[in-house]
Amino acid sequence: MLFKRGLRNAFIQGVFLLNRAAPRMVGEAYTLRYIPAREDVDQLGAFEGRGHPQREAIEACPPGHVLVMDARRDASAATGGDILMTRLMVRGAAGIVTDGGLRDTPTIEKLELPVYCGSRSAPLNLVRHHAVDAQVPIGCGGVAVYPGDVVVGDAEGVVVIPAKMVDDVAKEAETQTQFEDWVEMKVKEGRSIFGLYPPNAETKAEYEAWRAKQR
Amino acid sequence: MLFKRGLRNAFIQGVFLLNRAAPRMVGEAYTLRYIPAREDVDQLGAFEGRGHPQREAIEACPPGHVLVMDARRDASAATGGDILMTRLMVRGAAGIVTDGGLRDTPTIEKLELPVYCGSRSAPLNLVRHHAVDAQVPIGCGGVAVYPGDVVVGDAEGVVVIPAKMVDDVAKEAETQTQFEDWVEMKVKEGRSIFGLYPPNAETKAEYEAWRAKQR
Amino acid sequence: MLFKRGLRNAFIQGVFLLNRAAPRMVGEAYTLRYIPAREDVDQLGAFEGRGHPQREAIEACPPGHVLVMDARRDASAATGGDILMTRLMVRGAAGIVTDGGLRDTPTIEKLELPVYCGSRSAPLNLVRHHAVDAQVPIGCGGVAVYPGDVVVGDAEGVVVIPAKMVDDVAKEAETQTQFEDWVEMKVKEGRSIFGLYPPNAETKAEYEAWRAKQR
Amino acid sequence: MLFKRGLRNAFIQGVFLLNRAAPRMVGEAYTLRYIPAREDVDQLGAFEGRGHPQREAIEACPPGHVLVMDARRDASAATGGDILMTRLMVRGAAGIVTDGGLRDTPTIEKLELPVYCGSRSAPLNLVRHHAVDAQVPIGCGGVAVYPGDVVVGDAEGVVVIPAKMVDDVAKEAETQTQFEDWVEMKVKEGRSIFGLYPPNAETKAEYEAWRAKQR
Amino acid sequence: MLFKRGLRNAFIQGVFLLNRAAPRMVGEAYTLRYIPAREDVDQLGAFEGRGHPQREAIEACPPGHVLVMDARRDASAATGGDILMTRLMVRGAAGIVTDGGLRDTPTIEKLELPVYCGSRSAPLNLVRHHAVDAQVPIGCGGVAVYPGDVVVGDAEGVVVIPAKMVDDVAKEAETQTQFEDWVEMKVKEGRSIFGLYPPNAETKAEYEAWRAKQR
Amino acid sequence: MLFKRGLRNAFIQGVFLLNRAAPRMVGEAYTLRYIPAREDVDQLGAFEGRGHPQREAIEACPPGHVLVMDARRDASAATGGDILMTRLMVRGAAGIVTDGGLRDTPTIEKLELPVYCGSRSAPLNLVRHHAVDAQVPIGCGGVAVYPGDVVVGDAEGVVVIPAKMVDDVAKEAETQTQFEDWVEMKVKEGRSIFGLYPPNAETKAEYEAWRAKQR
Repeated sequence: MLFKRGLRNAFIQGVFLLNRAAPRMVGEAYTLRYIPAREDVDQLGAFEGRGHPQREAIEACPPGHVLVMDARRDASAATGGDILMTRLMVRGAAGIVTDGGLRDTPTIEKLELPVYCGSRSAPLNLVRHHAVDAQVPIGCGGVAVYPGDVVVGDAEGVVVIPAKMVDDVAKEAETQTQFEDWVEMKVKEGRSIFGLYPPNAETKAEYEAWRAKQR
Repeated sequence: MLFKRGLRNAFIQGVFLLNRAAPRMVGEAYTLRYIPAREDVDQLGAFEGRGHPQREAIEACPPGHVLVMDARRDASAATGGDILMTRLMVRGAAGIVTDGGLRDTPTIEKLELPVYCGSRSAPLNLVRHHAVDAQVPIGCGGVAVYPGDVVVGDAEGVVVIPAKMVDDVAKEAETQTQFEDWVEMKVKEGRSIFGLYPPNAETKAEYEAWRAKQR
Repeated sequence: MLFKRGLRNAFIQGVFLLNRAAPRMVGEAYTLRYIPAREDVDQLGAFEGRGHPQREAIEACPPGHVLVMDARRDASAATGGDILMTRLMVRGAAGIVTDGGLRDTPTIEKLELPVYCGSRSAPLNLVRHHAVDAQVPIGCGGVAVYPGDVVVGDAEGVVVIPAKMVDDVAKEAETQTQFEDWVEMKVKEGRSIFGLYPPNAETKAEYEAWRAKQR
Repeated sequence: MLFKRGLRNAFIQGVFLLNRAAPRMVGEAYTLRYIPAREDVDQLGAFEGRGHPQREAIEACPPGHVLVMDARRDASAATGGDILMTRLMVRGAAGIVTDGGLRDTPTIEKLELPVYCGSRSAPLNLVRHHAVDAQVPIGCGGVAVYPGDVVVGDAEGVVVIPAKMVDDVAKEAETQTQFEDWVEMKVKEGRSIFGLYPPNAETKAEYEAWRAKQR
Repeated sequence: MLFKRGLRNAFIQGVFLLNRAAPRMVGEAYTLRYIPAREDVDQLGAFEGRGHPQREAIEACPPGHVLVMDARRDASAATGGDILMTRLMVRGAAGIVTDGGLRDTPTIEKLELPVYCGSRSAPLNLVRHHAVDAQVPIGCGGVAVYPGDVVVGDAEGVVVIPAKMVDDVAKEAETQTQFEDWVEMKVKEGRSIFGLYPPNAETKAEYEAWRAKQR
Repeated sequence: MLFKRGLRNAFIQGVFLLNRAAPRMVGEAYTLRYIPAREDVDQLGAFEGRGHPQREAIEACPPGHVLVMDARRDASAATGGDILMTRLMVRGAAGIVTDGGLRDTPTIEKLELPVYCGSRSAPLNLVRHHAVDAQVPIGCGGVAVYPGDVVVGDAEGVVVIPAKMVDDVAKEAETQTQFEDWVEMKVKEGRSIFGLYPPNAETKAEYEAWRAKQR
């Protein structure tokens, strides 16, 4: 459906879901951007007090939103750990996506919160990443993410839907899913995919007739 | 055993088994080749009617065969989804191997069919891959696959055995597995691996004696 | 804690735990080094008799130690299989870490022994790796490993702690873990991370008071 | 201009020009496809007699054509050397492009023939590559190449133009180049790029007036 | 000298100098940030009128500054071409650094302006890159670059010096270079490096004596 | 010729010649091994006094030998600079090969000494590399190098020849080069490669006749 609208690059590459028991993820993107760490700036004291962009983002990400982090696809160090993920869950976040690493993943994977990362990675973010600003357009896993885009995730991965296309895409997705469920049923009955998927005129008519009967 | 026959490159690199509950995979290779997509050719209409090489391959792959796809090791887009995998299963395919991505993997991983891919990847194949021909020699995961080679897979991965070596290798594999099971037993009893694995003359005699007794 | 001591590179990159049911891994490093294989040297006969560095290492790695293998981060061939891993387990090894591949992983993953590798990889080590010497300083997954360093692993991965820092780090780790458990509890109760993590003076006092009460 | 026609992927990635003194390259693609080598097939005798696809392709590539080779972007071994490149030059080829390696590059780089490769690479093609067929659609450096497409190269690299777009693109390229030369002149005179590049109505009028005067 | 100040990561990785005849580059960083392109936003019309961040940056980068572009180390498309580079030169820029690609490199490499890029790359930036904002902290080739940092380049590559360290580093660099020139002279005379490089007390005295004589 | 002797992996991958004016390189390998740096060990003081393996190797590498360095193919930091390369030249080394980086490359590339590296790289070796021992078997660019192997380099790259094969290979190389020069001549005269390269019986006879006449 995004392809039909001209989008060829909406699937975040190189991340996976840590918590397989989590619900499907849907929410607006709240973005956080990292640049490479620099040793004179990124010392342990950095997190103290208010004002650190990563900590601020965690307390600012609104309920129902997905925190999406741009770590330049470098997963050799963490961009967060279990305490921060738990805080986000308690605050009502819909999920977390980072193309960097996460630490404490054995704990995180037990949360009932969809969390996607590039790698299980114990090193502190200060080793490699410096949080710099939030709610700016970012890249994550090779995909543009603008604040307010809708971020959708399942066990396969994460897709980013531009804000303005969301309603259309949601409607079409439902229709498409129903049709594909019917196709799946036909395939299991032994039907060839020729003329079925994609459907020719005859198949379309057959499907519509079937749908009419279901109501 | 392939090493002994001079083959150093028979294990398909960079693919993993989606469905851990699936049976062991053995079957002759039926090959499908993709090249990079080009926007003017690879439009949604491409799959309509007969004649699209991917759809043709799925309806042509004979029962008991393994569909092996060459996607140039680019797993950033799918080379198939659950409907096509289900159709292959219904038609009696022995398994599927692609060094590209697959979509709908949460559904595919529940099929009782061995399916190997390079990545879980939602984007439509048209974004990146153009199916061009079937039953030609291909590369898959860095390994040459000729139509008719025997493709064997377990939870570790996939090995390609040249057609002409299959009978010999199968016999030797059985012998070797029995011997290694016995070695494993001895190791569990506390035996050192020196002289045991690989076996010296004494160990060989001991094993033969043990085997004779088993019959 | 390693970061505080100036170490930014102690987490072995690119390896994963095969046996999720295994106990936590702690032990001194026993090292084994591989270089690229060369066809005239690395023939099947190589393992016969005593004297092959890989087989020697497996019989020499002391109980309670972790065998750490430097395979130049090339996981396209194995650096061992189930028989060798079983032998190590029987001999009392605390675990195995390799940045190369391992074969027979479906069997290995059932052992009650922590085994970390770069990939499931069927090809024989002779195809790519030549064991050359043991108990020398090596690199593994981008990290320096000196014989005698302490190697610690959990489901997230493996950290290497320089021998001379081990006692200090162990003490501090316990303290830190207790504090983080308390923080986790507070976060679950709904506390903001500001002033909590990292803690300000007030939070530190609160934690000390709580600890005093626990005893 | 290809972008305007919807093509986003026409530049062959990862190849460079060996012979900087060579003329600009333009010609129709004559394609050659390699798969991974297999030790039992790819022996030194392979090239003897007629019938080897690589040797056949070199003698069949028509004058004025560009030989484009698909080596799966693996440049760790050669796909040709100076003797074959010289033969192609003598036969009147317009150029050579391979995403594999080439050997004897110190000699090849002195030829007055545009030759592009992925790497200088001494190993014989048999080590890694098996030539399998010619004049089929291929991928080269991540780009689809169909026999008959027009392949254009300069010191920057190589672009593939679909056969059916060639005339249009050629005309437009000339127009565009003339305009950009004029823009370059204006920029050197100190003009800001706002309104100049891309041009607004005023700039377009100025350019047309200037062109009219030139005739 | 940066190492002595605790900086281990100041060299921009993966870029090279296009114009070998250019002067040494020194200037303050003026930064420009790209995110991945998205098809609905990044159309040809994008550059028209004022307001496009890339074009704005080119007209805003002050004389004597270095334009540093963060293209997420993706050099498969351009982040600029000869017209923009020429405009920067005319406006008095001290140089350009991008970890993306540049187009028209055969023309750019003849400019008397130091230009560093990740690759020669013909595709339009719209294919892959979307300029989003300027004068924010960025990453370039794995290094943090803050507006106002000093960017220094020669034929080897580019180093980023934090603003606050510049004066100290500059002084020390001069001293160090003079000393290394003297060491080079001694080495050419046949002196061993032991005690010379790094210098022991005796060598230091010898050098100081020599320097005193030079004045 | 190495292929004929069963060696498929003798070409050092990923290095290039810095000094194009240098003579062809031939010499026995003197090896130096690096592991990843560790911050507590690899401080500036490390090089002081005798005993540092890198400095020792530079003073120990015998005249006529090639210093080959194993930097684990990580070229993001230097494994040496102009002073060390100059010292090696003065001591009579036949050349240097490293799969790591080198610093001061603008100076090194003017030396009349063949120097091969993985990248131009300014960062000090201490940032990434720790020299650990010399004259042990190593890997360099994916190839096994044993002390005493013969290392041969030209503008294309570097090949490693096992000590025991050197005499045979040298003789055969001369014969082969003479034959290929004759083939090149024939190809320039317009001869087809069929039957010529590789030669059939007739061609072999023709070549022998031609050679006989030359004497």
